[in-house]
Amino acid sequence: MPLDLSSSAPDFAARFRDLLNAKREMSEDVDAAVARIIADVKQRGDAAVIDYTNRFDRLGLERPEQLRITADEIEAAVAGVGPDLLAAIDLAATRIESFHARQMPMDDHYTDAAGVRLGLRWTSVSAAGLYVPGGTAAYPSSVLMNALPAKVAGVPRIVMVVPTPGGTLNPAVMAAAKRAGVTDILRIGGAQAVAALAHGTGTIAPVDKIVGPGNAYVAAAKRQVFGLVGIDSIAGPSEILVVADGANDPAWIAADLLSQAEHDESAQSILLTDDNAFADAVLAAIEQLLERLPRAATARKSWDEHGAVIRLRSLDEAPALVEAVAPEHLELALDDPDAMANRIRHAGAIFLGRNTPEAIGDYVAGPNHVLPTARTARFSSGLSVFDFLKRTTLVGCDAEALRAIGPAAVTLARAEGLDAHGLSVAIRLGSTN
Amino acid sequence: MPLDLSSSAPDFAARFRDLLNAKREMSEDVDAAVARIIADVKQRGDAAVIDYTNRFDRLGLERPEQLRITADEIEAAVAGVGPDLLAAIDLAATRIESFHARQMPMDDHYTDAAGVRLGLRWTSVSAAGLYVPGGTAAYPSSVLMNALPAKVAGVPRIVMVVPTPGGTLNPAVMAAAKRAGVTDILRIGGAQAVAALAHGTGTIAPVDKIVGPGNAYVAAAKRQVFGLVGIDSIAGPSEILVVADGANDPAWIAADLLSQAEHDESAQSILLTDDNAFADAVLAAIEQLLERLPRAATARKSWDEHGAVIRLRSLDEAPALVEAVAPEHLELALDDPDAMANRIRHAGAIFLGRNTPEAIGDYVAGPNHVLPTARTARFSSGLSVFDFLKRTTLVGCDAEALRAIGPAAVTLARAEGLDAHGLSVAIRLGSTN
Repeated sequence: MPLDLSSSAPDFAARFRDLLNAKREMSEDVDAAVARIIADVKQRGDAAVIDYTNRFDRLGLERPEQLRITADEIEAAVAGVGPDLLAAIDLAATRIESFHARQMPMDDHYTDAAGVRLGLRWTSVSAAGLYVPGGTAAYPSSVLMNALPAKVAGVPRIVMVVPTPGGTLNPAVMAAAKRAGVTDILRIGGAQAVAALAHGTGTIAPVDKIVGPGNAYVAAAKRQVFGLVGIDSIAGPSEILVVADGANDPAWIAADLLSQAEHDESAQSILLTDDNAFADAVLAAIEQLLERLPRAATARKSWDEHGAVIRLRSLDEAPALVEAVAPEHLELALDDPDAMANRIRHAGAIFLGRNTPEAIGDYVAGPNHVLPTARTARFSSGLSVFDFLKRTTLVGCDAEALRAIGPAAVTLARAEGLDAHGLSVAIRLGSTN
Repeated sequence: MPLDLSSSAPDFAARFRDLLNAKREMSEDVDAAVARIIADVKQRGDAAVIDYTNRFDRLGLERPEQLRITADEIEAAVAGVGPDLLAAIDLAATRIESFHARQMPMDDHYTDAAGVRLGLRWTSVSAAGLYVPGGTAAYPSSVLMNALPAKVAGVPRIVMVVPTPGGTLNPAVMAAAKRAGVTDILRIGGAQAVAALAHGTGTIAPVDKIVGPGNAYVAAAKRQVFGLVGIDSIAGPSEILVVADGANDPAWIAADLLSQAEHDESAQSILLTDDNAFADAVLAAIEQLLERLPRAATARKSWDEHGAVIRLRSLDEAPALVEAVAPEHLELALDDPDAMANRIRHAGAIFLGRNTPEAIGDYVAGPNHVLPTARTARFSSGLSVFDFLKRTTLVGCDAEALRAIGPAAVTLARAEGLDAHGLSVAIRLGSTN
């Protein structure tokens, strides 16, 4: 049974805090095994990658060139994708590109009143690596959401790694990679793939940034190579928080809550409503839907163990509770969702109104579906072009500008006991003592 | 002796690679001690913080309220700062605020051709924690560079922690904190301060993001609380790379190289020049300056162990070498520095021309002096308002917009085997099978 709380209950604050602090994820400790794989790939390069790939994915690779999935293989796989799915991938890609293109920041170059030239310049990383899981969790939507921001940011080389257990390519994943402009696809996965992307091998040039979801080994490998390369945030289990009044169709909201729950037994779905009868109706609708959903076992476990219905005296209580959760996904199924959205600062993505199920954002809305989980929306953001860009600042003084601002730098340097700092300015001002 | 390489030497590529890969930093393993302190602060709160502070900083605090440095104490400390230094702090602060204010991104709200409302909204974190080291490394410039981006980003609560060994406040640090708009100052440091900021105590409300430099304990504590709160990047030793032609005054360039070297024995200064006689003159000037610099012992050790002079056949060789280093600080002491800057993508900050010593950027230029070290400028950036902001995306469909893009979402959801996702869209389109 999901948690069923009323904001008017005397122990509400304590029980809500327990809900916030509950750990949903068991993290497997695979650090030592991953460290060994990374060290091996660093030392033996392609040979190590081939060994691990043959062993874990049951392949029979013999030469490094075989690590690459060829253009012919990609075309053959894509040929097996039906026209409806290809069209859906294209619609999604087009909308994701449009939304992300608007994020692109402008450079800024100016000369200020003191005559100092100043600048802020954005450039892309030189190469990005995209991890795509194999097997059942190989999602074409994930390929689009991770690769397109890199492409829009102008990254010239986008290397996708995807394990192919038993040698099978996922046609929809290949179609998404092709549409997203991935430049290289390698049939490798696990910690060995992350190691190859970070350290490089004879045939795989190293990348600067690695993004994309993966299992415990992949997450541990990303943590271990962080610093040598950049990584995206390590995502926790997915979450949705729905704020709904009694005017919604209970079955719609039930479907939304289950769409998170079906991801993963650790996923969390929370309903906030001011209407008791509606809350009961959603609970009943969830039971009905669970009878016919293919992934009902997963969804039920998530809903029973981590789900929650919170009955409010008034929707005015919602913003403070939502901010405490800082949900990855926030649905506002209300007549005036914008008014509520304006009162909530901490959420990864907000879905406005009764006709905006969260799943629309997973696929085709345009914003990214890689979003901050586990309350990290308090300080972090979804994937975007900014993950593939970095800033360089520029300063240029002529002799006159240096005379205007240099003396203050000398004063500060001396106060901090950094005399060579002061000297490097003073010597240009002609006062070296 | 610093490394002295010629790009025309037959073993240049290998020796340059060794220079890139040399580890300059010994990292002390303090993880276990730090984990114990964090667990203690999490459990015992203020009492633990008081115990550690009394022990490590030789204080006699008895009550949690005493952890806070009072407005009267701050005023008394600031009264001891001379007018020149106060004016220099104010000039630096004003210029840093101006530069960072121009970074503030705009929200974006629009309705696209399919009738979908889309938005990208920026909001600040609710509270930021700023670590300031005690003792000799307490730099007012560091307070300005870390606090002002948070203030410009609109962070309502900025909590500074600074250890006060023996009870002594650093007047210039207090003056900088006051000028920067820090809202709370606590006389605590070390892992216990980071733990208090991340977990909160009875008297210290938790923050969402922790920034600022610190020793090995502070760095380890920041790594351990990462995820619960955001952190800035953990900075490595400082670096400068100077590209200079023979028309420069050798003493100016020598001072610039030493201004990095004096920071830290692990700092690195590299000169690239196409003029052999100039390289020799810089080497000689460094020896002369080292005879009269107060921090000569540190600077000499850094220069001898990590410094390098690279003699080029032509300055055209510089961009590729600079990009491989991806230096924190890049000085282009050339007649046309902009042309060279345009050929280099990977650098934290670029200083243009003969009259722009790097130290001007440490204090008063306006851009941030917290910059990516250890080749991470390939994928990361200096501190900015973006470190204190996060993005929320917004999507709003009405029934018609959902009819336009919903069917593609259903197609993708079904292809991915996520039927509840598909259902949550299909049920609103009136097609639930």
